[in-house]
Amino acid sequence: MASILAQRPPPARVAPLVGPWSVPIRDVQPPWTVPLTDGEHVLIEYGVAVAAMSLIAMLTRMWSARREVGDRYRPMVHASVAVSAVAFLSYVLLALELQGGYVRRGGVWVPQPEAIGTWTARYLDWTVSVPLLVVEIVAVSAVTGRAASRARLVGGGAAALMVTLGFLGGVVIGSGADFRALLWLGVASAVCFAVVYAVIIVVVLRSLPVLPAAARAPMTTAMVVLLVVWFVYPATYGLQGIVSGGAWTVTEHLLMSGADIVTKVAFGLLLLRVARIRTASDVVAADDVHPESIWIDQLRQSEGERAAALRGSDPR
Amino acid sequence: MASILAQRPPPARVAPLVGPWSVPIRDVQPPWTVPLTDGEHVLIEYGVAVAAMSLIAMLTRMWSARREVGDRYRPMVHASVAVSAVAFLSYVLLALELQGGYVRRGGVWVPQPEAIGTWTARYLDWTVSVPLLVVEIVAVSAVTGRAASRARLVGGGAAALMVTLGFLGGVVIGSGADFRALLWLGVASAVCFAVVYAVIIVVVLRSLPVLPAAARAPMTTAMVVLLVVWFVYPATYGLQGIVSGGAWTVTEHLLMSGADIVTKVAFGLLLLRVARIRTASDVVAADDVHPESIWIDQLRQSEGERAAALRGSDPR
Amino acid sequence: MASILAQRPPPARVAPLVGPWSVPIRDVQPPWTVPLTDGEHVLIEYGVAVAAMSLIAMLTRMWSARREVGDRYRPMVHASVAVSAVAFLSYVLLALELQGGYVRRGGVWVPQPEAIGTWTARYLDWTVSVPLLVVEIVAVSAVTGRAASRARLVGGGAAALMVTLGFLGGVVIGSGADFRALLWLGVASAVCFAVVYAVIIVVVLRSLPVLPAAARAPMTTAMVVLLVVWFVYPATYGLQGIVSGGAWTVTEHLLMSGADIVTKVAFGLLLLRVARIRTASDVVAADDVHPESIWIDQLRQSEGERAAALRGSDPR
Amino acid sequence: MASILAQRPPPARVAPLVGPWSVPIRDVQPPWTVPLTDGEHVLIEYGVAVAAMSLIAMLTRMWSARREVGDRYRPMVHASVAVSAVAFLSYVLLALELQGGYVRRGGVWVPQPEAIGTWTARYLDWTVSVPLLVVEIVAVSAVTGRAASRARLVGGGAAALMVTLGFLGGVVIGSGADFRALLWLGVASAVCFAVVYAVIIVVVLRSLPVLPAAARAPMTTAMVVLLVVWFVYPATYGLQGIVSGGAWTVTEHLLMSGADIVTKVAFGLLLLRVARIRTASDVVAADDVHPESIWIDQLRQSEGERAAALRGSDPR
Amino acid sequence: MASILAQRPPPARVAPLVGPWSVPIRDVQPPWTVPLTDGEHVLIEYGVAVAAMSLIAMLTRMWSARREVGDRYRPMVHASVAVSAVAFLSYVLLALELQGGYVRRGGVWVPQPEAIGTWTARYLDWTVSVPLLVVEIVAVSAVTGRAASRARLVGGGAAALMVTLGFLGGVVIGSGADFRALLWLGVASAVCFAVVYAVIIVVVLRSLPVLPAAARAPMTTAMVVLLVVWFVYPATYGLQGIVSGGAWTVTEHLLMSGADIVTKVAFGLLLLRVARIRTASDVVAADDVHPESIWIDQLRQSEGERAAALRGSDPR
Repeated sequence: MASILAQRPPPARVAPLVGPWSVPIRDVQPPWTVPLTDGEHVLIEYGVAVAAMSLIAMLTRMWSARREVGDRYRPMVHASVAVSAVAFLSYVLLALELQGGYVRRGGVWVPQPEAIGTWTARYLDWTVSVPLLVVEIVAVSAVTGRAASRARLVGGGAAALMVTLGFLGGVVIGSGADFRALLWLGVASAVCFAVVYAVIIVVVLRSLPVLPAAARAPMTTAMVVLLVVWFVYPATYGLQGIVSGGAWTVTEHLLMSGADIVTKVAFGLLLLRVARIRTASDVVAADDVHPESIWIDQLRQSEGERAAALRGSDPR
Repeated sequence: MASILAQRPPPARVAPLVGPWSVPIRDVQPPWTVPLTDGEHVLIEYGVAVAAMSLIAMLTRMWSARREVGDRYRPMVHASVAVSAVAFLSYVLLALELQGGYVRRGGVWVPQPEAIGTWTARYLDWTVSVPLLVVEIVAVSAVTGRAASRARLVGGGAAALMVTLGFLGGVVIGSGADFRALLWLGVASAVCFAVVYAVIIVVVLRSLPVLPAAARAPMTTAMVVLLVVWFVYPATYGLQGIVSGGAWTVTEHLLMSGADIVTKVAFGLLLLRVARIRTASDVVAADDVHPESIWIDQLRQSEGERAAALRGSDPR
Repeated sequence: MASILAQRPPPARVAPLVGPWSVPIRDVQPPWTVPLTDGEHVLIEYGVAVAAMSLIAMLTRMWSARREVGDRYRPMVHASVAVSAVAFLSYVLLALELQGGYVRRGGVWVPQPEAIGTWTARYLDWTVSVPLLVVEIVAVSAVTGRAASRARLVGGGAAALMVTLGFLGGVVIGSGADFRALLWLGVASAVCFAVVYAVIIVVVLRSLPVLPAAARAPMTTAMVVLLVVWFVYPATYGLQGIVSGGAWTVTEHLLMSGADIVTKVAFGLLLLRVARIRTASDVVAADDVHPESIWIDQLRQSEGERAAALRGSDPR
Repeated sequence: MASILAQRPPPARVAPLVGPWSVPIRDVQPPWTVPLTDGEHVLIEYGVAVAAMSLIAMLTRMWSARREVGDRYRPMVHASVAVSAVAFLSYVLLALELQGGYVRRGGVWVPQPEAIGTWTARYLDWTVSVPLLVVEIVAVSAVTGRAASRARLVGGGAAALMVTLGFLGGVVIGSGADFRALLWLGVASAVCFAVVYAVIIVVVLRSLPVLPAAARAPMTTAMVVLLVVWFVYPATYGLQGIVSGGAWTVTEHLLMSGADIVTKVAFGLLLLRVARIRTASDVVAADDVHPESIWIDQLRQSEGERAAALRGSDPR
Repeated sequence: MASILAQRPPPARVAPLVGPWSVPIRDVQPPWTVPLTDGEHVLIEYGVAVAAMSLIAMLTRMWSARREVGDRYRPMVHASVAVSAVAFLSYVLLALELQGGYVRRGGVWVPQPEAIGTWTARYLDWTVSVPLLVVEIVAVSAVTGRAASRARLVGGGAAALMVTLGFLGGVVIGSGADFRALLWLGVASAVCFAVVYAVIIVVVLRSLPVLPAAARAPMTTAMVVLLVVWFVYPATYGLQGIVSGGAWTVTEHLLMSGADIVTKVAFGLLLLRVARIRTASDVVAADDVHPESIWIDQLRQSEGERAAALRGSDPR
């Protein structure tokens, strides 16, 4: 182990080989080792802070949503609460690493060894939050019972493994500067990536015919948004092996901050809509009751249980 | 990108041209680069801290309001909770930047490079909170269903774009000292500003005839307050290109802190009143029930659902 | 503005005039510029910390009280929650300023320029919390509807103005060392002080005949306590212009910390008792229902709504 | 005042007198001025941290208990919530003072002037929390109405005075090194101590015959535990005047941390059990209703109000 | 005492004896005194941070679970809330100790005296949380009344003693470098370990025949997971006496962080499932009611009380 987790290697120039995708294999300059101009530095700060603020806003929203969704679909809300909390704290950590990791010297922001923390903070968030995104979508799907357990286990497990492998390749081994580690752990991570995709697609496709009509559009949008935006992560991982420079560091940070907003906030709000439509639909179908009337965009979807009782009729 | 996000340019004196509004074009001295006297420094601290305290007070109020408003109008409360949380945290950040960004030397507070953070902290707050203000007002208006979605999307999107463009022009490009960037991105931002205004005015004007009589006054006041006070932001943005000096820096900070209190606290409280009046009105109209009686200024607007049940009559 | 907010003036010895109250006019040595002994320093720390702890305790109490009071009087609870939160955070800030603002050198605690923050932190708290104290007392009084709005507006507005003027005179202008500023802004502030007193006295005197008998004693006590203890603030403000020295700095801090405990904690608990008695009284008078029975000192004031329903009788 | 709160006196060796309890009177070396070995230092850290963790655990427990106890006995829960919050924050402060107050030099932890804060943090906690312990026990006793008010006032007031006098004698005057101050303020404090004891014993003895049988054991245990463990505080106070050295500093910190765990956590849990048994007993006696069934160690004490309603019978 | 808690001893090479398990007795190099490479350092940071994030996610989940479980089994939820809060805060502390305890010098992370805190933080967490794990499992078992009290007391007490003894042997005495202390206190700790195991096994085995069928699998899994994973702790404790080096320090931190995730998060979620199944089972058996329907993996286990009332039938 000690030999793999070696200290930052001397910048030994290995002979340029031709790697896959016809890119010459060479040692990599990780994005957190590049000096930044004032404008680049403030743009990264802005991207990180806007993501953090969006996540804390989402946390307050989802925390309140626990009462607005039936017990049946509430695991989706619980998972989203956890995702928002974990991601918010990770962004706070990222912001601290950003502040401590760069020192302004000679008009330029020079990265310190601690700047690696701006990347580590992202991976540790994903290790916990990506499996929880799988939990979210399963919880409002039509997959139930043991099949739901299995989907969560396979999808969530593959997601955790995917992130961990990516972390080992992109940050740990050779301090993220070892192209071969980047490549082969990237490949292994991509296999897990494919498993996660498969689980999500199967879960959603099986659910669509069963879901109430109004829930199908947000469910489909949520899936598409997730699957499309998730490509940002392997793309920036791959970029690490190919390009470098301040502008790329900025681009990677902004892309990943934006992707985190989409997959944690927008995705969660779409699934919350699905959960609320399904809760209302269960009330109408007499499968459950709910204390309040449920309204979406001020249109009533179902009646609260006491409203029905007062009317002297069945609540649906 | 790298060329745009250049390091702070040497203070090249460009030839004075006559720009729009007959102001000579020149490089700008951003407000966060001006030394401050003791009195100026303590006044900015005071303004920032009073805004922060008002926002945390608002957060506690709105958090409680979640139960005091029906499910139909509750998205207004959720948005205001998020606005208060985000703005409070931004002001905490601003206070930290203020403390770290100025050093007292020779009886004067000399700005450090970090002092730019006192401006960045404002923009990152607005990026998230201004779109949410649009969500707030739509949620208690008479615009429902798809029209509501559209109003949120157009108004909120334009708001986010408006702030981001302003940030690029006022802080990022040329470190806020480039008059041309300030000008043209200001113009682009102003277009978005007009869209946001149009959305809000249309939403409110369409709603007024439909709202319960008692809700019209707070709704109108909320709109007027918002539209008037929002002019503070472009005004201070514009001032940045025209004037400079410690007294102006103080003025700009106090104006913006005051404007944030009005648009986040006063505006939110007015809309909460609208939401509570409408909730009571729905109970009276038998469109919904509410567990508690609703009282405004100790005058009862509607009866709680169990009070009605105990009386053996319909709850309205 | 720049001329008023000047840097700390050279200690120019103006010719001693005879001012009002026969005190020779001279420049003032503000309390935050005096060195402190070990005992004085630890006593201030103790006073500040005990106030902070009392306020956080009050915050937990009032946060729970939201469910223990009817919707009608709940604005009192909301205001007290906000007061406790704001004041607690201000005391945390004060404690930090105390720690950063004094350095132990030669066996004595020598004040730094930052020590002014131990005074600023108090004023920014009051700017937000004093108007909210007016809101608290109006909310449980017998003044309702538009008259309540007006009382809040006039009383709260005068309170905010009073504190701001005091801050300008006592801390900002001439860094708190200008006797004339202290005097004339003190006079202006005193006018607002009188308005606030008038509003509170009128509100309470109008309410007493209407309140339930059991609520009159706590209501009167709350008013008296407030009006008496509030004199501490102008007194310490006035002391700033007359006396100076470590013992006075300690006295002023202890007096103000004690006064904050009384006006925020004791005053709030008395009004909470009024609100609970009135809630119970509304249940008994069939004006409202309340989910739980209300007990004060283990004596039952009213029955919970379901208890009544189970008994098959009216809940009162 | 200035003369009493003097700076740390020169270690004047007064002539050894024979004081009470046959101990020679001499100046005292307060426990926070003694250097510590590695083992001693880590043991104090451990004791402080375990107490802090126990208190935050207690805070989460009591916060939840607010719904599990009837309105009648809930003041006990509110007081315990406040105690846990205040004590937790004080322990956080204590931990910070511990970290900042000792510097490792030459293999030994040398105390700095700030180390006095490890003692101050304890006294400021007690000033607020000890009176609240009196509130806790009165709230579940059989003492009601005005007698309850009186017991809280006398017991709580004496408790606050007791701690303040101890603080003046043990920390403030002569920086805790003045044996005469320690002695005479200790005596004054002991008088208050006796009053507190008397109040608690009277309250409990009057209650025991009236309480439901199942509540008597936890009530008695709570009283005994409190009265016995409270002797730790005067004992460590007294030790300060008699012995000194690193091992004693450790012993005193561990004793006081342990005593805080017992009087705040164990005592609170015992009284919570009393409150729950009494709530269930009120339901059975038809004095009140409670929404849920109450279970203790999985044995049902009373039925929830709706369970009874569904059964079509009286809930008790 | 002072002699036991001595300062770090000079690395006196005692004559190698043959100890138990045929390992030569020698002084120990504790894991927190070993320099780390970049890769090792970042891996420990990652393991600690992932554990912290999992624990905060668990805290949000369990906090919500308080309403989703009947009063009968809720002590399990309360204990798990406390465990998550305490462990999360300990991991935050651990992360701070990690940051302050290692300094990068010459491409290697050199441990400072403070690095011992990375071990202390673990022990103080366990002192509070391990007894609470015993409380969790007893609360959902079939052991009730006095037997439950006894199981909690014996199991929890042995657990607290086990951790304290381990702490004295592994960290305090001789600063964790004294093999004899490590050995004999380890043996004493192991005895307590056996008691805890016995209590848990007896409680679970007695419960299995009585539990509802669906609850048996998660109950058994929870027990097995706990008993197996808990062996990690004595193993790493033992390793401390046998091996040393950076790779082992990493291994020990990763193992313990992983074990904490399993015993606090996975174990808690399994027991929550047991508690929810039992709550539903009590509703079906007419032993209690629950306001909501209970669903597990979207399969309904029981009906909410009002749903049943609306149907005009018994709720089960």
